[in-house]
Amino acid sequence: MGRGVDAVADLGLIGLAVMGQNLILNMADHGFTICAFNRTVSKVDRFLANEAKGKPIIGAHSTEEFVSKLKKPRRVMLLVQAGKAVDDWIETLLPLLEGGDIIIDGGNSHFPDSNRRSQYLAGKSIRFVGSGVSGGEEGARYGPSLMPGGNEEAWPYIKDIFQSISAKSEGEACCEWVGDEGAGHYVKMVHNGIEYGDMQLICEAYDIMKRALDMPNKEIADVFTKWNKGVLDSFLIEITRDIMNYNDEDGSPLVEKILDKAGQKGTGKWTAVNALDLGMPVTLIAESVLARCLSGIKAERVTASTKLEYVGRKSEFEGDKESFLDDLEQALYASKIVSYAQGFMLMQEAAKEYGWKLNKPSIALMWRGGCIIRSVFLKDITAAYRNTPDLENLLFDDFFNKAIHKAQPGWRNVISKAFLLGIPMPAFATALSWFDGYRTKDLPANLLQAQRDYFGAHTFKIKPECASEKYPDGQDIHVNWTGRGGNISASTYQA
Amino acid sequence: MGRGVDAVADLGLIGLAVMGQNLILNMADHGFTICAFNRTVSKVDRFLANEAKGKPIIGAHSTEEFVSKLKKPRRVMLLVQAGKAVDDWIETLLPLLEGGDIIIDGGNSHFPDSNRRSQYLAGKSIRFVGSGVSGGEEGARYGPSLMPGGNEEAWPYIKDIFQSISAKSEGEACCEWVGDEGAGHYVKMVHNGIEYGDMQLICEAYDIMKRALDMPNKEIADVFTKWNKGVLDSFLIEITRDIMNYNDEDGSPLVEKILDKAGQKGTGKWTAVNALDLGMPVTLIAESVLARCLSGIKAERVTASTKLEYVGRKSEFEGDKESFLDDLEQALYASKIVSYAQGFMLMQEAAKEYGWKLNKPSIALMWRGGCIIRSVFLKDITAAYRNTPDLENLLFDDFFNKAIHKAQPGWRNVISKAFLLGIPMPAFATALSWFDGYRTKDLPANLLQAQRDYFGAHTFKIKPECASEKYPDGQDIHVNWTGRGGNISASTYQA
Repeated sequence: MGRGVDAVADLGLIGLAVMGQNLILNMADHGFTICAFNRTVSKVDRFLANEAKGKPIIGAHSTEEFVSKLKKPRRVMLLVQAGKAVDDWIETLLPLLEGGDIIIDGGNSHFPDSNRRSQYLAGKSIRFVGSGVSGGEEGARYGPSLMPGGNEEAWPYIKDIFQSISAKSEGEACCEWVGDEGAGHYVKMVHNGIEYGDMQLICEAYDIMKRALDMPNKEIADVFTKWNKGVLDSFLIEITRDIMNYNDEDGSPLVEKILDKAGQKGTGKWTAVNALDLGMPVTLIAESVLARCLSGIKAERVTASTKLEYVGRKSEFEGDKESFLDDLEQALYASKIVSYAQGFMLMQEAAKEYGWKLNKPSIALMWRGGCIIRSVFLKDITAAYRNTPDLENLLFDDFFNKAIHKAQPGWRNVISKAFLLGIPMPAFATALSWFDGYRTKDLPANLLQAQRDYFGAHTFKIKPECASEKYPDGQDIHVNWTGRGGNISASTYQA
Repeated sequence: MGRGVDAVADLGLIGLAVMGQNLILNMADHGFTICAFNRTVSKVDRFLANEAKGKPIIGAHSTEEFVSKLKKPRRVMLLVQAGKAVDDWIETLLPLLEGGDIIIDGGNSHFPDSNRRSQYLAGKSIRFVGSGVSGGEEGARYGPSLMPGGNEEAWPYIKDIFQSISAKSEGEACCEWVGDEGAGHYVKMVHNGIEYGDMQLICEAYDIMKRALDMPNKEIADVFTKWNKGVLDSFLIEITRDIMNYNDEDGSPLVEKILDKAGQKGTGKWTAVNALDLGMPVTLIAESVLARCLSGIKAERVTASTKLEYVGRKSEFEGDKESFLDDLEQALYASKIVSYAQGFMLMQEAAKEYGWKLNKPSIALMWRGGCIIRSVFLKDITAAYRNTPDLENLLFDDFFNKAIHKAQPGWRNVISKAFLLGIPMPAFATALSWFDGYRTKDLPANLLQAQRDYFGAHTFKIKPECASEKYPDGQDIHVNWTGRGGNISASTYQA
């Protein structure tokens, strides 16, 4: 097989759907020689004869040939469907690879799968990398955000390629080593959860402008244009502006004709479930996923809209529209700060729980460019974590601390008005509820613990500052709340 | 072994912790002969010599002896720890049982385990029942809420015992057959999720009385006393009244000394995760679980309380206190209606997804008495589902429809004030957000679908009423939003 002669490719990529093709083209444009392969081999020839023509891209017609064309240690990147296909390819490749070779999964794998594969392949001396890839197809072609994690020994061998092809933000590559095992896919999952949140917040802002302020889409577009020049400057605000301006042939805004039914079975849900598993109050992503669920039961909502009417003491917006729009910008900004603070809290807890070292400034940097949530905002987050790498919470950073204090009055005004007017803003509202809860030393969970002890003898602990001889600090305490006999005090109340 | 002579017991119960003992005593009080058994056999003798003395309770010293003492078809009930212990006991019993015998799991099993066991035992001609048991230890002793599901062939053989020992509500047993496989444990899980919600709502009501209205606990107790005579009449309101009135030796309310840190790793979390899995917007339970998570990170909250201050345009409660308390009662009532509506929506979807027949009037009836969420309210829910067994949503029932319309103005007032004053009411707020979303024909998810199509070519569907030749109803549509080349139109924006 003449490996010495043929082994010319810096990396081999399997899976020639658009993402895979675009990543290959991107790598080739940066001077790397790539070997392309695909289960259906005819796709290889078609790719070589068309998009890949004239570039340092070679192909293979069998897995053996594919592997033989790779420089050592071999770097094989999979861009195939998450799940079984990844495992199948790993098994196909294993007999052909040797110790020290590298398998990179660039698909949308769930992080527990990447944990498992990382451990499995380590036992076979193969270095596994699970990498989040964000930015869609155009990102893959011209500069994605890349979030690689797994066996860190692989990093020196792929760093140059990954950082060359990734998006750049002020000269810095939006790609850094994330952490062990499935940490790369984990961070990509949280990224997507945050993306759910950002999108939901923008939808709610649009909804209140449309329904409470009666603004036509053109005017709403102008607001997004303005916002895109300030603290909210971001890809998602930018495309929302474009969408608001996009008219159908009849001259009316196309967006108003689109069915208001969104799916939610993917990474957003994974993030919410993981937050529940880790016991972390990631409320904004959870509400955003649930808001999609609510959008999904459209038929039932149509029925409900005929049976459930608005009743309130004030059904129309009163006050100054411009100052309300300023408040709305602040409310969106503050809610976004809360969402990212929650996301970083979740990653921090995951690192503790799963024993990963996560590099927080790098994560913020990776999200600054290339991906869907890219924004000026993430530049400030990067700065916050660079200033204080062990920052306990984003809200404790000076910049964001000032920002959220400044935003509060407008934030409160917008949400209280929305509830009075009957416009749902679940993500905005949960952000502020969370903020007010988070800054509260004594939450009413003391009553909850008392209730649990009352009906189930579940015991409680005493506040350290209230500890006494009778109720010592740190101990599980049970009280006979009713004074009736026995240790078990649930009443025999019958409804 | 003389089975003919010894087989005298109507039911055998394994697991002599307090729940098991109390269920046995309850059954014996209703005239059934019960055989008690326990892994640690000395516990059997101790029980027989003490609590069981003089009652129709016998014991056994081996599994063989235990089984030999049961009438056929044998009824064996397990009250052991959920998880491996249940599987182990099933394996121990299997060689000793014969076709048609019945195994009942009365523990806190997760419903997928009950699904699995139901199928597994059906293959061995053993009838499996997974039964939710609620009401704590005193409930078990004097009248629990029982929610049995599984192999319906078992029901005629256990119905008499189960309905005799269960709580009664206006003469009706709070126990009916729930449905197939793990349906009994499923309904118990949702019950517990709703319990999480009820408790969180009460905590938030207490918090706003304490912090916004500056009410001392004695006065708060009076409010709960009053509420317990109206639409909110329930076990949890009753015990909250008692807790508010319970003073420590120094004359100050004990509840204020209890650490405000609650756990959340159990059935509440299962319910929220299941809702996400089924794509159902069960927001109130989810927020309640997340509120417990937030309570759990007390140390971080203490830090946050020194760094994050309230800022707003109105920091003190203004207005009439009595009318605000009336609003608060209505707000709590409305939020509770939403929570139960969501819970029943979830069960309805589960029935569809898992192929179960669930009896909704029976579920409401089972929760009316014996369990933690027992209330007058559940009487009205039972009536609603009895009037219209195929009721699409609880909010469409006349009684609840009127109730929630009447409650709306107060509900809106309370929540908008809480946000202005900086008191977190996440469960109240999410209930109203959901209500306003649920009654909305056109949610802003149209924008979300446009965004997804813009950056990822994910396509969208058109509103049926806006369908045209260009955009036909039901089809997946992609639009080139920017007018720039290619099908893929995500911008190359670099932060």
